[in-house]
Amino acid sequence: MSARIIDGKAFAEGLRARIAAAVPEFAAAAGRVPGLAVVLVGDDAASQIYVRNKGKQTIEAGMHSVEIRLPANATQAEVEAVVASLNVDPAIDGILVQLPLPKHLNEAPVINAIDPDKDVDGLHPVSAGRLVAGLPGLVPCTPMGCMLLLRDVLGDVGGAEALVIGRSRLVGKPIAALLTNANATVTLAHSRTHELSAHVHRADIVVAAVGVPELVRGAWIKHGATVIDVGMNRIDVGGGKTRLVGDVAFAEAVTIAGAITPVPGGVGPMTIACLLRNTLVAAHARAGLAPPPV
Amino acid sequence: MSARIIDGKAFAEGLRARIAAAVPEFAAAAGRVPGLAVVLVGDDAASQIYVRNKGKQTIEAGMHSVEIRLPANATQAEVEAVVASLNVDPAIDGILVQLPLPKHLNEAPVINAIDPDKDVDGLHPVSAGRLVAGLPGLVPCTPMGCMLLLRDVLGDVGGAEALVIGRSRLVGKPIAALLTNANATVTLAHSRTHELSAHVHRADIVVAAVGVPELVRGAWIKHGATVIDVGMNRIDVGGGKTRLVGDVAFAEAVTIAGAITPVPGGVGPMTIACLLRNTLVAAHARAGLAPPPV
Repeated sequence: MSARIIDGKAFAEGLRARIAAAVPEFAAAAGRVPGLAVVLVGDDAASQIYVRNKGKQTIEAGMHSVEIRLPANATQAEVEAVVASLNVDPAIDGILVQLPLPKHLNEAPVINAIDPDKDVDGLHPVSAGRLVAGLPGLVPCTPMGCMLLLRDVLGDVGGAEALVIGRSRLVGKPIAALLTNANATVTLAHSRTHELSAHVHRADIVVAAVGVPELVRGAWIKHGATVIDVGMNRIDVGGGKTRLVGDVAFAEAVTIAGAITPVPGGVGPMTIACLLRNTLVAAHARAGLAPPPV
Repeated sequence: MSARIIDGKAFAEGLRARIAAAVPEFAAAAGRVPGLAVVLVGDDAASQIYVRNKGKQTIEAGMHSVEIRLPANATQAEVEAVVASLNVDPAIDGILVQLPLPKHLNEAPVINAIDPDKDVDGLHPVSAGRLVAGLPGLVPCTPMGCMLLLRDVLGDVGGAEALVIGRSRLVGKPIAALLTNANATVTLAHSRTHELSAHVHRADIVVAAVGVPELVRGAWIKHGATVIDVGMNRIDVGGGKTRLVGDVAFAEAVTIAGAITPVPGGVGPMTIACLLRNTLVAAHARAGLAPPPV
């Protein structure tokens, strides 16, 4: 028996199409399209690719896209001044500061300077607090992507035993909060956890977000469990070649799990789609409209 | 074999003594004593007793105590104006709005109006966000009291299996965050959890904060586990009499646990002591001093 392969690429395409369809409705009600601003400091090659993709997909969704580039030697005050100007820009609903910032800059004050109502990356402490409290707010994109995939596979996750491996502020902790708010019984495991295999074996839902190649073995998994693999690890496969693998040993797990995300093509494509979703959600909230149906 | 009874009353007395000893040191450095303001709206009898006890213990610790009473028919704007004036009062380090507020008032905007740096009840979304992120901030008093007792009994809780029963915003969720930040492997159980007994049986640390009298049976508990009972349930024992019991069946659990808090006399006395601790912590942070050694 082989697990259902959860096609994050197809799901993300569908989500982007629903967002694009909702944009004209928003524009009709608000008299403008939603706007997303991305701030890029310096010339990190990977960051430039991410920012280009974000801008491209923002425009494809029919939204207003702003890209602000600052030189690698920009000062803390300059970066925070850009954020402050975007906070008061009525055309901008979402502000994303591409991380990491150059080493001479302090990230926390930059993130904290973002208006929480425009914090489409969900990194502001107010966003984290709202999420934990179950209040309306903006949820980090990758965790939200995981939840949308889980809901698509399982429907209601209430009462399920969920194991989240990895307690990062950006992924593991927000996923744990989302699952708790959705009535799952959540265990949050990490590098200090003993007998991880036993925890995995109890879980109806496993979310691996720890950055250790193929840490979770197939034999650990409960038959029929749903496995969401957030890991993106590039490993050396010899002959000068590399391969992208997740935190789960996919070839083993696929024979035991009920459903599993591949790497690549699982959680990864969801991130930008959820960024656009957050921008649309923020735009509706700022315009005093009910949340969009996406 | 009988468990160690964790004497919260004695621990809280010791903590209050350490706080009182730290106040003159703060005063020498800052030129003033720490100040706590409690806002009480209306004439709820239980709230009046709480507020009186808080004021009494604040003064006993050598701190500046302010009590602001508003009539039961105070408006939302009046309550928020009081909070705003305390935010800018340099003599005030901590602001506590006694809950519940009268029904015609909306609690969330009042809490959100408190300067997070003076939020000694730890209820502001910024406080919740800082806690989850592991950033310095003010932690709700009852959860902090539980952690101080656990550290006193166990020292390091790193690697321990911890079960928190109850996912309230004020108790269960903050305790789960504190335990995760202290490197425990935390499971957060609640009313939708299946097989609670099996979860309890796996746990080295059980924190019960669910408000169901004697829900956790002694036979569920792992031999030698540490049990923290946050429950305070008044039950009818016949003949017109009532008795205060926790969420754990104490008489059963005491024969199996390694250490357990009684009800009353366990977690309860820690709450006001932790409020004073938060006021001292907030005072040090506001004065630009290193955290106090309490």
